[in-house]
Amino acid sequence: MTTWLETLITASPEDGFALAMKLSRMAVKMTQPSDEVRKKLRPIYEQDANALIASSQVVATNFQTVATANNYWRA
Amino acid sequence: MTTWLETLITASPEDGFALAMKLSRMAVKMTQPSDEVRKKLRPIYEQDANALIASSQVVATNFQTVATANNYWRA
Amino acid sequence: MTTWLETLITASPEDGFALAMKLSRMAVKMTQPSDEVRKKLRPIYEQDANALIASSQVVATNFQTVATANNYWRA
Amino acid sequence: MTTWLETLITASPEDGFALAMKLSRMAVKMTQPSDEVRKKLRPIYEQDANALIASSQVVATNFQTVATANNYWRA
Amino acid sequence: MTTWLETLITASPEDGFALAMKLSRMAVKMTQPSDEVRKKLRPIYEQDANALIASSQVVATNFQTVATANNYWRA
Amino acid sequence: MTTWLETLITASPEDGFALAMKLSRMAVKMTQPSDEVRKKLRPIYEQDANALIASSQVVATNFQTVATANNYWRA
Repeated sequence: MTTWLETLITASPEDGFALAMKLSRMAVKMTQPSDEVRKKLRPIYEQDANALIASSQVVATNFQTVATANNYWRA
Repeated sequence: MTTWLETLITASPEDGFALAMKLSRMAVKMTQPSDEVRKKLRPIYEQDANALIASSQVVATNFQTVATANNYWRA
Repeated sequence: MTTWLETLITASPEDGFALAMKLSRMAVKMTQPSDEVRKKLRPIYEQDANALIASSQVVATNFQTVATANNYWRA
Repeated sequence: MTTWLETLITASPEDGFALAMKLSRMAVKMTQPSDEVRKKLRPIYEQDANALIASSQVVATNFQTVATANNYWRA
Repeated sequence: MTTWLETLITASPEDGFALAMKLSRMAVKMTQPSDEVRKKLRPIYEQDANALIASSQVVATNFQTVATANNYWRA
Repeated sequence: MTTWLETLITASPEDGFALAMKLSRMAVKMTQPSDEVRKKLRPIYEQDANALIASSQVVATNFQTVATANNYWRA
């Protein structure tokens, strides 16, 4: 598998948030490697308020990690 | 998409809390891009105590990140 | 809306815990602005062990933020 | 109400863990002030594996705060 | 009760992880002191994927605390 | 049991993420030592969106610990 995570350092907070989204999705992908199964599950959690809230919790934890890595993009 | 997250630095704790709310909502928006679906889900979780508590957990984690970024707005 | 969050600095750990409770409730209030709806939900989650535990998790995360902001009220 | 939280500083990790338990319970008490209701709920969550796990998550977060406050009781 | 938590300092990351498991279990034990009830619950959560995931979340939070206490066992 | 956790230090963020996955799984393995039971549970949570999200939350917390241990792999 090509390197999918070279660094935690990003140019901006927005890029950092996108990386946090990617980290969250990669954990699911590594737990459930089948694209087909994940594709089948997507419409289920995408329409489920609780699942969307739970996934935003994962992003919040990963964003905390990425923001700290980037010293909060403070000048 | 225009830049929605320029900086984590805010003028006040209250602005920081508003940013934490925004970060929490953006994670949902990026997971479920359809305004229509999110609009349909809103009345469901807005009336569900558990969903409201779970979303306040996401805000708490994001607020922790923003507060640390702002050195807790200590003078 | 008047300023509801001037500072994270409190005189004591006990005041800090009260602020963590307030931060937790404000996130719910900002997600569900209707006093009427929140009043209707209150007796539901107040009698639900899982909801009470989940809300104490939110308080624990916010208290961690407030305690760190106050350098743990170490003399 | 008498002061229930004078300090986060404890003599030992074990006392720190007891404080984390206390912080977790106080959040529930402040959300549901009725001793009678809490007493009614206790046998329910005490026999529920998921509730016990969720409450140990709250203790883990509060213990993290207390341990950091005490610099991990490192000599 | 004899002292069950002398220190957070461990010789290795592996011992630190074992301590994190112990901290997680002690929170359950202090919430539900009855060995009999806990024994009755064990086969339930041990066969429940969600309960196993939730308990690994508690261990992850406690391991974060123990790892920080040990400065991540960096030489 | 041979040493499964020598160090938290990894060569790259990607190796760090793999370690976070391993830490998450080891907590489940130590709670449910039976390979047979875990094998039986795997197809259940692998097809359950909520379980996949919850397990990615565990990975996010463990990745935060590993990233901090490695000083975020900053050069």
